[in-house]
Amino acid sequence: MINNSELKYIQSFAHKKHWAEESAFIVEGPKMVQELLRSNWTIKKIYATADWIQGQGVLPVPVVEVDQIMLGRMSQMQTPHQVIALAEKESFLKPIPFNETFSLLLDGIQDPGNLGTIIRTADWFGIQQILVSDDTAGFYNPKVLQSTMGSCFRVRVESVLLEEVLTASSLPVYGAVLNGSSMYETKMESTGFLVIGNESKGIGAQLTKYITHPIKIPKFGHAESLNAAVATGIILSHWKA
Amino acid sequence: MINNSELKYIQSFAHKKHWAEESAFIVEGPKMVQELLRSNWTIKKIYATADWIQGQGVLPVPVVEVDQIMLGRMSQMQTPHQVIALAEKESFLKPIPFNETFSLLLDGIQDPGNLGTIIRTADWFGIQQILVSDDTAGFYNPKVLQSTMGSCFRVRVESVLLEEVLTASSLPVYGAVLNGSSMYETKMESTGFLVIGNESKGIGAQLTKYITHPIKIPKFGHAESLNAAVATGIILSHWKA
Repeated sequence: MINNSELKYIQSFAHKKHWAEESAFIVEGPKMVQELLRSNWTIKKIYATADWIQGQGVLPVPVVEVDQIMLGRMSQMQTPHQVIALAEKESFLKPIPFNETFSLLLDGIQDPGNLGTIIRTADWFGIQQILVSDDTAGFYNPKVLQSTMGSCFRVRVESVLLEEVLTASSLPVYGAVLNGSSMYETKMESTGFLVIGNESKGIGAQLTKYITHPIKIPKFGHAESLNAAVATGIILSHWKA
Repeated sequence: MINNSELKYIQSFAHKKHWAEESAFIVEGPKMVQELLRSNWTIKKIYATADWIQGQGVLPVPVVEVDQIMLGRMSQMQTPHQVIALAEKESFLKPIPFNETFSLLLDGIQDPGNLGTIIRTADWFGIQQILVSDDTAGFYNPKVLQSTMGSCFRVRVESVLLEEVLTASSLPVYGAVLNGSSMYETKMESTGFLVIGNESKGIGAQLTKYITHPIKIPKFGHAESLNAAVATGIILSHWKA
């Protein structure tokens, strides 16, 4: 059983003030909690139904059994699934030197679902480091974490001043812009940066000047634009192809 | 001004029973309504604020002025934007013979946002026809329409028995499956079909047997899967590259 103040504490992760400032975060559902257990992140507590607990071996963390009704009260999901975990924000993922990797830079991605899907897509293509502007959606927003499908535990996501990173570097900087060269004609290097801009405004003027390789995904039909996560996937696939 | 029964009528599009069975549908916001006005779809009525109306020329449809408060009551969006249009479901987009086009087949896409984003992505790459199984999210779900960003007025989306289509055809059928050949090694023809499966279950067994070219998007990192709309974009980009 959990008491009322613990219930209220878990519920408050629905509010930005709480998930942004608290030193812990929550993830929900068997899939996310399984990924969390596999990772090196520190779990503080797990709240789960008897069903979920029975399917596990001995777990190295405190587990509190809750019934379906209590889980429903704690959960932020429309259909709560078996388990909620509370973990510490301290990430074990260390920064990778820019000249040893290919980093994704996100300039003002607003939609939490888009950010989560971008992290998941980056993880698929082996990207290990994502740098985000401070007006990008918050990494610890539960909607972001859930839509990464677990990739949030494997890809380092750090909020930084993107201009400072690009000023200090001489690596190639690829950026999707309207007047860029066809991506298909551009050979992309294995180290460097890919900048993805805001869903409606694109890449901000303060960053555009650092782009050494402006590229675009050629359009064959009539849509005005592509979804930011879809565009990221298409460019990363070309990068790896 | 609009009366209470008209308000209730517009509000009921929030419910599946209404948007699925009604002979009309609604779209919201200046961008969507602009796309609708540019298309050949029949608009029954437009509800808009004075601001929006002032920015238009003479419109060939009835326009009712509503204030911001009334718009907020009519709207299904968190932040209502200026205008809501009511249009007829009768599409002017005619079927295209399968051997003259490349059709996308969706087998059980559940999430309305995913379906809308897939339609938008298909439109970008020049796909004009999408066939969906009856367990795919409903095309006229307002969440689907909104996330197409207007592509719903340009791409024909039809609910059909996918098996029947594939049984009757001798065109290449591409399908993303776990044990497929690398997409990068597969040359895709300009006519044929691409089958995209359900977000968690993939392509159903009843359709798998019709796939003549099983392909996969090679994985370089650790994510278990890609979002369905992202995968569609990556494959369509390869198809066009």
